Amino acid sequence: MENKYRTKHYQWFTKLRDDICTAFENIEKEYSGHLKDQIEPGEFERKKWDRPGGGGGTMSVMRGRVFEKVGVNISEVYGEFSEEFRKQIPGAEKDPKFYACGISLVSHMRSPIVPSVHMNTRFVETTKWWFGGGMDLTPTIEFAEDNELWHQRNKVACDKHNPKFYPEFKEYCDRYFYLPHRKEARGIGGTFFDYHNTGNMEEDFLFTRDIGKAFLETYPELVRRRMNESWNDEQKEKQLIKRGRYAEFNLIYDRGTKFGLMTDGNTEAILMSLPPEAKWP
Amino acid sequence: MENKYRTKHYQWFTKLRDDICTAFENIEKEYSGHLKDQIEPGEFERKKWDRPGGGGGTMSVMRGRVFEKVGVNISEVYGEFSEEFRKQIPGAEKDPKFYACGISLVSHMRSPIVPSVHMNTRFVETTKWWFGGGMDLTPTIEFAEDNELWHQRNKVACDKHNPKFYPEFKEYCDRYFYLPHRKEARGIGGTFFDYHNTGNMEEDFLFTRDIGKAFLETYPELVRRRMNESWNDEQKEKQLIKRGRYAEFNLIYDRGTKFGLMTDGNTEAILMSLPPEAKWP
Repeated sequence: MENKYRTKHYQWFTKLRDDICTAFENIEKEYSGHLKDQIEPGEFERKKWDRPGGGGGTMSVMRGRVFEKVGVNISEVYGEFSEEFRKQIPGAEKDPKFYACGISLVSHMRSPIVPSVHMNTRFVETTKWWFGGGMDLTPTIEFAEDNELWHQRNKVACDKHNPKFYPEFKEYCDRYFYLPHRKEARGIGGTFFDYHNTGNMEEDFLFTRDIGKAFLETYPELVRRRMNESWNDEQKEKQLIKRGRYAEFNLIYDRGTKFGLMTDGNTEAILMSLPPEAKWP
Repeated sequence: MENKYRTKHYQWFTKLRDDICTAFENIEKEYSGHLKDQIEPGEFERKKWDRPGGGGGTMSVMRGRVFEKVGVNISEVYGEFSEEFRKQIPGAEKDPKFYACGISLVSHMRSPIVPSVHMNTRFVETTKWWFGGGMDLTPTIEFAEDNELWHQRNKVACDKHNPKFYPEFKEYCDRYFYLPHRKEARGIGGTFFDYHNTGNMEEDFLFTRDIGKAFLETYPELVRRRMNESWNDEQKEKQLIKRGRYAEFNLIYDRGTKFGLMTDGNTEAILMSLPPEAKWP
């Protein structure tokens, strides 16, 4: 599967993973809230996995004092789609061969006043190619100024490339991260794009990188804003219920979860997104 | 939708619900374990819901000191299946009209040494008719003699009607309550049958009732065996992880959950099966 641009893309996802892990470990060390003396600063643990049909990935998981559980997975997989799955993927009807690489991240925080986040960017190639991904925030307790910063940073990253991107990708995000059976949004959204191919791979890759960079600049900033504040039982209970909804979304609707399970991905890596603890009281 | 046998079937499910609720409330009162003075004996609360397209149901939920959360739902729904769903249901291709009534129960226990249980029996009619249901046990900590009693009582109920039922329905149960992505069984099984129609509605109804009666005789007995024993943190942690798998099964695979959500059932009633607390550590 050697190929110049594939290698370049996967190297970026790997670098982004490294930068994110470093940023999150720094947060763990800086933390000075009420759990400071009870829990050691977390460190990421890495675990490689191989995919039977080709490729594999590396999970990085940290269980810390700010990040109750955070998984940052990268993967590079290739092979052939199953007969059933081919029909659902652009460009795979004629030829089942595929290549995909990307990074996927979900954080679940100890504090209910620090938001959870999901970020994922990927490059996929069948007889066609595209980038996909985005980032969305799931606060339990909302702060208007935090929500605003989140959306504004998403906008800046998009606007740099095309003024049409932000409104479109924001709306896609709101539509996608929605639980119809609850008539509830999963969180406050952000941006989400898929099958992104403007015809210029270099430019589309730059855009995808800018989304990753915007994440790296923004989420740690939001975490630092609130991480040292204490919280009460009622807020924690609310968070655990919110996490139940998160699990519902990921198990019933999430396309990434389905893609992973349908392509013989690593179950442990795919379900790393599930919350460390959740309630349906 | 008046119809003699439908009314008779629904009345049975209603009576079974009443008997089960009484039996479970008696257990709450009898309990003499270490939580006796900390938590009041639970009592069922009932809540009716209407289905927009026709019919509705009643949820009965108890949050007690033995039963951390138990839901006993009955429903009687009728109307027309959606275009998409028709293809999946026997006898609905030509005519989308359907009628369904039944009882569905899931218990999540405070003690990790008392097993969880699921029981469901139902009658469905399209241009065809059938009974379906079964019961399966999910212990966290297994006791050989309890497992044995469970399977033996299932066998007796089946054998009374046809010696071929038990092996077939036990195997169906094992196959159905299985998480392929984990390569794990949900629990220890029991019996599961579907599209059950021997041509004799009266006899098939008797069989379905005997499954319900076997449940009512057996599960309370198993609960009483262990409910007053204390447990340790390690056992409780194991139970919370087991419950995470339970949530995975119900949200990804369960046919009843899908049927409910696809037929505009009541989300609160359908997802009553989810555990009060679960972990993915």
